[in-house]
Amino acid sequence: MMDSKNFSNPLSLRDIRVTDDFWKKEMELVRTEVIPYQWDALNDNVPGAAPSFCMKNYRLAGELNARRKADPAWQQPVWTTGIFNLVPEDINNREERFYGFLFQDTDFTKWVEAVAYSLTQHPDPQLEKLADDAIDVVCAAQLENGYLDTFYIINDQSKIFSNLRDHHELYCFGHLTEGAVAYYEATGKDKLLKAACRYADYIDSFFGPEEGKCKGYPGHEIAEMALVRLYHATGNDRYLSLSRFFIDERGKRPYYFDTEADHPFEAKGENPPLRHFYHQAHLPVREQKEAAGHAVRAVYLYSGMADIARLTQDEALFEACETIWNNITTQKMYITGGIGSTHLGEAFTFNYDLPNDTAYAETCASIGLVFFARRMLQIKADARYADIMERALFNGVLSGMALDGKSFFYVNPLEVLPKACHEDERKFHVKPIRQKWFGCACCPPNIARLLSSVAAYAFTENRDTLFVHLYVGSEIVKKVCDKTVKVSIDSELPYSGKASVRISASEPTSMTLALRLPDWAEGCSVNGKGAEVLYSSSRSGESAAEGGSSSMKSVENALTIQKCMEEIAASAGAASAELRSGYLYLTGVWSGETELALDFPMQPRIIAANSAVREDAGKVAVICGPIIYCLEEADNGADLHLVSLNCAQPDFEICPDAVLGAPAIRAAGSRRKPQDSADLSLYHEYRAPEKKACTLTFLPYYMWNNRGEGEMTVWVKED
Amino acid sequence: MMDSKNFSNPLSLRDIRVTDDFWKKEMELVRTEVIPYQWDALNDNVPGAAPSFCMKNYRLAGELNARRKADPAWQQPVWTTGIFNLVPEDINNREERFYGFLFQDTDFTKWVEAVAYSLTQHPDPQLEKLADDAIDVVCAAQLENGYLDTFYIINDQSKIFSNLRDHHELYCFGHLTEGAVAYYEATGKDKLLKAACRYADYIDSFFGPEEGKCKGYPGHEIAEMALVRLYHATGNDRYLSLSRFFIDERGKRPYYFDTEADHPFEAKGENPPLRHFYHQAHLPVREQKEAAGHAVRAVYLYSGMADIARLTQDEALFEACETIWNNITTQKMYITGGIGSTHLGEAFTFNYDLPNDTAYAETCASIGLVFFARRMLQIKADARYADIMERALFNGVLSGMALDGKSFFYVNPLEVLPKACHEDERKFHVKPIRQKWFGCACCPPNIARLLSSVAAYAFTENRDTLFVHLYVGSEIVKKVCDKTVKVSIDSELPYSGKASVRISASEPTSMTLALRLPDWAEGCSVNGKGAEVLYSSSRSGESAAEGGSSSMKSVENALTIQKCMEEIAASAGAASAELRSGYLYLTGVWSGETELALDFPMQPRIIAANSAVREDAGKVAVICGPIIYCLEEADNGADLHLVSLNCAQPDFEICPDAVLGAPAIRAAGSRRKPQDSADLSLYHEYRAPEKKACTLTFLPYYMWNNRGEGEMTVWVKED
Repeated sequence: MMDSKNFSNPLSLRDIRVTDDFWKKEMELVRTEVIPYQWDALNDNVPGAAPSFCMKNYRLAGELNARRKADPAWQQPVWTTGIFNLVPEDINNREERFYGFLFQDTDFTKWVEAVAYSLTQHPDPQLEKLADDAIDVVCAAQLENGYLDTFYIINDQSKIFSNLRDHHELYCFGHLTEGAVAYYEATGKDKLLKAACRYADYIDSFFGPEEGKCKGYPGHEIAEMALVRLYHATGNDRYLSLSRFFIDERGKRPYYFDTEADHPFEAKGENPPLRHFYHQAHLPVREQKEAAGHAVRAVYLYSGMADIARLTQDEALFEACETIWNNITTQKMYITGGIGSTHLGEAFTFNYDLPNDTAYAETCASIGLVFFARRMLQIKADARYADIMERALFNGVLSGMALDGKSFFYVNPLEVLPKACHEDERKFHVKPIRQKWFGCACCPPNIARLLSSVAAYAFTENRDTLFVHLYVGSEIVKKVCDKTVKVSIDSELPYSGKASVRISASEPTSMTLALRLPDWAEGCSVNGKGAEVLYSSSRSGESAAEGGSSSMKSVENALTIQKCMEEIAASAGAASAELRSGYLYLTGVWSGETELALDFPMQPRIIAANSAVREDAGKVAVICGPIIYCLEEADNGADLHLVSLNCAQPDFEICPDAVLGAPAIRAAGSRRKPQDSADLSLYHEYRAPEKKACTLTFLPYYMWNNRGEGEMTVWVKED
Repeated sequence: MMDSKNFSNPLSLRDIRVTDDFWKKEMELVRTEVIPYQWDALNDNVPGAAPSFCMKNYRLAGELNARRKADPAWQQPVWTTGIFNLVPEDINNREERFYGFLFQDTDFTKWVEAVAYSLTQHPDPQLEKLADDAIDVVCAAQLENGYLDTFYIINDQSKIFSNLRDHHELYCFGHLTEGAVAYYEATGKDKLLKAACRYADYIDSFFGPEEGKCKGYPGHEIAEMALVRLYHATGNDRYLSLSRFFIDERGKRPYYFDTEADHPFEAKGENPPLRHFYHQAHLPVREQKEAAGHAVRAVYLYSGMADIARLTQDEALFEACETIWNNITTQKMYITGGIGSTHLGEAFTFNYDLPNDTAYAETCASIGLVFFARRMLQIKADARYADIMERALFNGVLSGMALDGKSFFYVNPLEVLPKACHEDERKFHVKPIRQKWFGCACCPPNIARLLSSVAAYAFTENRDTLFVHLYVGSEIVKKVCDKTVKVSIDSELPYSGKASVRISASEPTSMTLALRLPDWAEGCSVNGKGAEVLYSSSRSGESAAEGGSSSMKSVENALTIQKCMEEIAASAGAASAELRSGYLYLTGVWSGETELALDFPMQPRIIAANSAVREDAGKVAVICGPIIYCLEEADNGADLHLVSLNCAQPDFEICPDAVLGAPAIRAAGSRRKPQDSADLSLYHEYRAPEKKACTLTFLPYYMWNNRGEGEMTVWVKED
């Protein structure tokens, strides 16, 4: 059940200054490496990289508009619209037409979104000028009626919205809107926002429940959540209704996509719902129980569903979100927060199907999982959501970018044999080394916009509560009615669990601070209190699963917890302390300076997968705090399939700065003696394996592959 | 080095009567089930199955010929030739044109080959009449110039041999020739043989080293070995030269396939050799060191190479065959004798890449490996070849057909989770249940022709030697000069190693009997002699690898072996006994009846794979004699990834007739306790696994999947 009292929203990034050592470094990489590179890329200025054509397309669309206005009799040439990725042999000798992937507009709109976030943390007039000028170009491409997608503006305007399933117009609109809102919120400039509104108005006039309007919905979701942002930014209800319309229409019979002229004869097999899985359009969304189809599309949709569930207080929709969330996180998610087990359709597969070496686990899908998690947190601050959000961020997302910010992974496997990536077509999607850029450049800009807005995921608020979901060192200005409170967070995460929260109120202010107690922080304490009970009590659902406790014992427990809460409240000068769903709520009237010392102990832990995961049977993973570790050939030699971890006595040792400046974890393991090189037999009489003790060196998964090609594995055989 | 004294050839099947319990049953299945079914299939008379169109196409080609002859001015309509598998909506309302796959002619030619072999063992005038009538239809389709491929006869004769790479004409010719020779040898009737010769003559006039002739070669090999059979049957040297020409041309630069008009612009990337891997045309064959590309094409080529190496005493070619043989059998072969690790191109991949659950291991590829092995044996009776031939026959080949002969596997995986086959597109090629028939029906007829000619693989001969490669119970008439010797073999294989050989000579005849000592028969004996030394001495290469023996010890060994040989010779009434490459050679002047009692002990053995095979690390397989065993869900429950074999103390027990009438092997194992169903966590703190002792029931791999869908695995975790 939803309770609107618990709803929350991200703060304006202008009210947060990120100071965190770890995240600040990532954000600086985005600012100094990714954003400039991306600008060059979308202007076709990266030697050796596939041209984007993005700004060229906008410019051409603008010129065509101008010509059309100057001479209403002028007939624009019409090209075929079935082109997916047209690239001329010589970029300088190209015809006047659209080039690149048909969603190429988003190269700009994602860039401008990252720029916007970056400007909130690091004002940069030169960069802002660059963005303003680019926005002028983009806005010049907009048609009189508000339509703004260069593919159809250039190619054939009669075909607008005729192929929603494949042609990404509403996806491009969604990114345009996200970028426009972000830029407006960061700079106060509304030129792009107005363009997005005009386009949204056009879409609203085209689609809708009213008779005569089109009953379609996006082939690639994102417009749903983008429209919600536009609604928040403008207060215009129609954008909320349009988002809800898209969500409500999805999966209705007859299938809208089947009625589209561009693919009328295709794949209308015996099993109609199956063929709409890819687009999550196989069933009305409230009836969907499993994460299905293209993973990025899926989590973008679920994010939009969560937004609408919250804003319209739609219990059935929230229930669908919860069901799908549980399905993903208990049956379809890699330990890294990666999702999408197959490259075929970049998609979810069946429950517990989590192959490590052929994983897709697209960076963008993990990013989408972060979106979804934050939106679930906005409905209900349950640490289950934040735990996964943190997991995905530190692992499945960060692994997508090299430590120097200069190369990227689309696909984030959990086990790699470079030879297989080169020679086995089934693994061609798994790159053994990060790539400079991609023709279909979705992941790098997506990382850029997420990392530069990480504070929007770390914190949410409602009227009188500040939620700390992630301990990202920051200075936050929290408004409570007409008062403001400053909250400073210091954090040594992810490699130490020490953190502190300082509340500064110039006048007494009533406020609740909701602090997440991470799932990995057994023995955590606040101001030195609660190490015995805080962790286990914070996750009642989980401890209940450990076995029934007698009612006598529960009474005892309740008393212990109450005592602990009183101690913590007293130490923090708060009126009350309370545990709910993995969050510690400290409520009080704050004045002056209050400092809370948080301690989230972290030590290396050995993790096993559900026994239903066949690929991980007999294997374990090592994690420490929020970080998943892995073995790399560079530290452990080749043939990682021959090593195992001594699970009974791992003798873990954390070695600060040992690998690439990060702590490595050394552990006791063993290595099977490989077959004698003189023995060429492929099969031979079994002999008890000879094993040699060895020291294994684990490094954070997100840092893998920063030292050239080599084997890697997250899951190690147990011994 | 080759030594022509050791060369041998298969005997005429008319000189062998197979009496073997095991193989006779398989051959009867082919005779009573497969051949009639196949006849119905190629006449489109199987309700519910994709029509073959095979005989319809032959008939139409014949009618067009007749029309052309009757009216030379008549213009045959021309259709496009780019059609791969055209199937009309309603088979009765089809236009007068070619339908089905473009190699559909081989549905008949493979059938007639199986019929021929079957007639040698089981004369059947009615079946022979059916074949004769069908041959009339086929021969009527032949053009005046000898060309005989209905695809181009019907579609567009101007395009004959214009797309050798893809269009299978020379493949169809090969099968036609194999069928024609087999039918001639079985029945003495030469109508089809003459047609094949006329077609071969036409091909010989088209292709060849002479100026002006085409320098192409088959896109799908088989013509190479078929021409050798035609040469043996007719004595016509030109067929041998043509085969050699195809082998010599293959892989020469510039690549012939690149010059073909039908695919001039395709895939001419930066890496020319790579794109010809699929067709084994990336390098001249003598320079090829690794098995590459489409596995069936590959082993068909290697078989042809071995034929030509022998007949032309081409050392370099033989060396290439040996290198490739070693590569396959020590780096690219499943323990079942399956080859081809990927469904993408049905192809070989890199060394030691042997995934069990995505294996292709096509039935036809194992059949081709049997072809290759027999041809290597013809050059040199080395038990290494026969061991693999036997392995493939009893396992990777037989698994292709259900026990009732009514359904078939193309793909023979070593691990199956039916859910994955249904829901994971990456495993759609792995069928969880045998299929009735295939639109592209290569495997079932290939099994039929192999099983009904198994005696041609079990035995070869040269002037005075009879080689027994496989112990297939048979009565053999061996001609030595103008005398004949009868050799009767009784065999309890594959489930007991007792066998006997009876030699009956009505007059004293000098002959050598070469008996293979199987690689699995440790402690084997002849007439009760040699149990101590015969096995280890028979495989000097292997025993040498065990570690150097002092020269003193070798002298001792040599004496022991010599004594053993003398004892065996004496017991057999032979002049001499000798061990060479895993064969026991008994030479003598035989008269009257001589009986040899052979004992090849078999007990369950645990086998491990080379440590370089990642997918089998920490796993073992169980084999007994020539049979590979597996675990099925039907006997062991689901979740086979949770069970392991107690390798230290397996307590094997053979239970006769326990599963599907075959012996099952029971063994001590354990099963991991699955995760508590109340615990939904996908990842959790590691706990030492709880294991429960259990009894594992193994059944012969070739019998798997005869009791409906279920999990199966050959490789079991070691404990």
